Amino acid sequence: MLGFVLNTHQQWISRQLSDLGFTVERQVAVHDEGAAIQSAVAEAIERAELVITTGGLGPTSDDITRDLIAQLLGKPLHENPAIVAHIKEFFASRSRGVPASTRVQAMVPEGGVVLWNPHGTAPGLALPTPKGWLVMLPGPPRELRPMVRDQLIPLLAVWFPVPTVFTCNTLKTTGLGESVVEELIAPALGGLVNRGLGIGYCARVGEVDVRLTARGDNSAVIVAEAVFLARELLGVHVFSESQEGLASVVVGLLKKNGHTLALAESCTGGFVANRITNVPGASEVFTIGLVTYSNAAKTEYLGVLSTTLDEHGAVSESTACEMAAGVRLRSGSSLALAITGIAGPGGGSEAKPVGTVFIALATAEGVVVKRFLNQYDRETFKYYTSQQALEMVRRRLL
Amino acid sequence: MLGFVLNTHQQWISRQLSDLGFTVERQVAVHDEGAAIQSAVAEAIERAELVITTGGLGPTSDDITRDLIAQLLGKPLHENPAIVAHIKEFFASRSRGVPASTRVQAMVPEGGVVLWNPHGTAPGLALPTPKGWLVMLPGPPRELRPMVRDQLIPLLAVWFPVPTVFTCNTLKTTGLGESVVEELIAPALGGLVNRGLGIGYCARVGEVDVRLTARGDNSAVIVAEAVFLARELLGVHVFSESQEGLASVVVGLLKKNGHTLALAESCTGGFVANRITNVPGASEVFTIGLVTYSNAAKTEYLGVLSTTLDEHGAVSESTACEMAAGVRLRSGSSLALAITGIAGPGGGSEAKPVGTVFIALATAEGVVVKRFLNQYDRETFKYYTSQQALEMVRRRLL
Repeated sequence: MLGFVLNTHQQWISRQLSDLGFTVERQVAVHDEGAAIQSAVAEAIERAELVITTGGLGPTSDDITRDLIAQLLGKPLHENPAIVAHIKEFFASRSRGVPASTRVQAMVPEGGVVLWNPHGTAPGLALPTPKGWLVMLPGPPRELRPMVRDQLIPLLAVWFPVPTVFTCNTLKTTGLGESVVEELIAPALGGLVNRGLGIGYCARVGEVDVRLTARGDNSAVIVAEAVFLARELLGVHVFSESQEGLASVVVGLLKKNGHTLALAESCTGGFVANRITNVPGASEVFTIGLVTYSNAAKTEYLGVLSTTLDEHGAVSESTACEMAAGVRLRSGSSLALAITGIAGPGGGSEAKPVGTVFIALATAEGVVVKRFLNQYDRETFKYYTSQQALEMVRRRLL
Repeated sequence: MLGFVLNTHQQWISRQLSDLGFTVERQVAVHDEGAAIQSAVAEAIERAELVITTGGLGPTSDDITRDLIAQLLGKPLHENPAIVAHIKEFFASRSRGVPASTRVQAMVPEGGVVLWNPHGTAPGLALPTPKGWLVMLPGPPRELRPMVRDQLIPLLAVWFPVPTVFTCNTLKTTGLGESVVEELIAPALGGLVNRGLGIGYCARVGEVDVRLTARGDNSAVIVAEAVFLARELLGVHVFSESQEGLASVVVGLLKKNGHTLALAESCTGGFVANRITNVPGASEVFTIGLVTYSNAAKTEYLGVLSTTLDEHGAVSESTACEMAAGVRLRSGSSLALAITGIAGPGGGSEAKPVGTVFIALATAEGVVVKRFLNQYDRETFKYYTSQQALEMVRRRLL
């Protein structure tokens, strides 16, 4: 509550649960203080059948969630020998002694179910409540996420069998605004909505996700029909029907088509290379990335002509083309992408305002270049531009 | 609540308020549904003197917050002609007609205070409640953040004068774990804690922030003394006493010392270049960045010897040194940083497990290289490694 930490659990857990057909009613954050935690949990177990808490299970003096909740539910704590053994083993495998403070993590409230933590020392704990279950999860995402996927979700299927079949599918699109996506598909999906289809739109930077859901015995048919219609109407703008991101889709297409990719970035400053290299296995297709901010670097490393820079400027169609052709030739890659533009806040002119971007794609057949105007803050600008650049590669490989 | 969107408002607003001395008691998220919104707001105005809502003020049919809150507080809505004029002007300046749907944004609940929105069409609105004030802010961060800074915070000073003076200072450190930071400073600050000092630790990836606060007439003296002691004890690990991030500090030091920097990245895949180019004005000091994933790229673009790669491997002290020396020489930069390592998930060995990284810094005096073991998921690995790399440059420039 001091604003030091961004809470990413809410989004991640909500996504897992809503894709399974659960309705997430409320998310609450309170500060690390006994009365605040207890009253928030007490309210939540009154309101909801499933309550999940995150964090506060560690060994330090701030980690008071386990004790407070056991107290609230009137459950005495008992040391669990299997957890003690796991903690010892955890430290032994790292050649470290067991700090005395970690023993508190072996305490389990009476009647509690233990969720094992292969990635840390604090187990998760689940306790029955008058309306259902309360689940305590450890705070670190690398401990929490596998615990949810591998242990909590199977338990939920037992504790809260979703009464009707639930079907959910998400189409990820790029190149269209949210309202355009809606205009394109909403009329054609109207009949399905009357039969129970739910449509959700989520606008992100350079991306609109369409979530199609239904409940009941016909849900699979309804969602399949909706996906078919939406795919037809949105056409090439749909880049993923799974959760796969655009960079991962592009890396997959490069591999499948036996291509290699080189990058020459100016205004995006390495952000496109970063996105591509976030995809495991990108090294198979990604040959070289150059971040050429200065004119000198564009000339020396890419072979851009100084007359081109003088006549047309560093942010120009001609410079983008020479950057792409240059890095493709020098790196021996089959494809090359080049990006030059004005991220701002300074550097704009009337003819080329802040946000102007040229993206060039060089192939064996020649170079194509597109002009965009992305008027956003510096980091959003980079993201938006990277979407357009990756999309040019994807379109080429379809 | 579907998990499509990450809520960043909570952290940002909490930080603004807590740095001003307010205590943020609770944050709640509910889904876009009338009863859920009204009951969350009704509970909040019972509990707190200041309640802030975000989002739901736009022109579409989901944007129901304004109406629901006016209804809850029993305030009729009236069209405000100045807002109508602002909306017309907003669209006129973009050469677009005014969509009929946007007129709803000019409706103001009786007795409401309008917060102007120079970055969009929906104004913020503030209404008195029995215990204090309720403030509705628009959802987009680029509209919300300036509205908070320029309009809400000055109003808060009038509505809720903090009864005693509040002083707050944050030291940002790198290179030490949270528990080490605490061990280093807590004993020496004990006396100040007895006099009212508050110490907060926030561990991020490759960074620990220490927040020092006090209230009352002596607060400035207490915090100044604490900052002095903490700075002495943490020494070179403190890289910022303002909110400035490490990349920005490094760019500032490069400028101040008349240096230029070149980068050769392997496992960080452009992430260090990306962080540096997120700093406005980085182009003055950043000459070239190369993302050389493959051995071929390391040889061709940086001049790494193939015998070095054969004998020591791409992830080795020798390769890191040649990468740094090579890019420094070829780019004519005064400093050069090179990073090579194993991000994982694959590619590790017994001698060089996943997470092994070599970072080399080349200067006019020669090359220094350090070995690290950063065992994290791929994106955390990149962030952690980038902190260590930037820190090597910063230390060199102190």
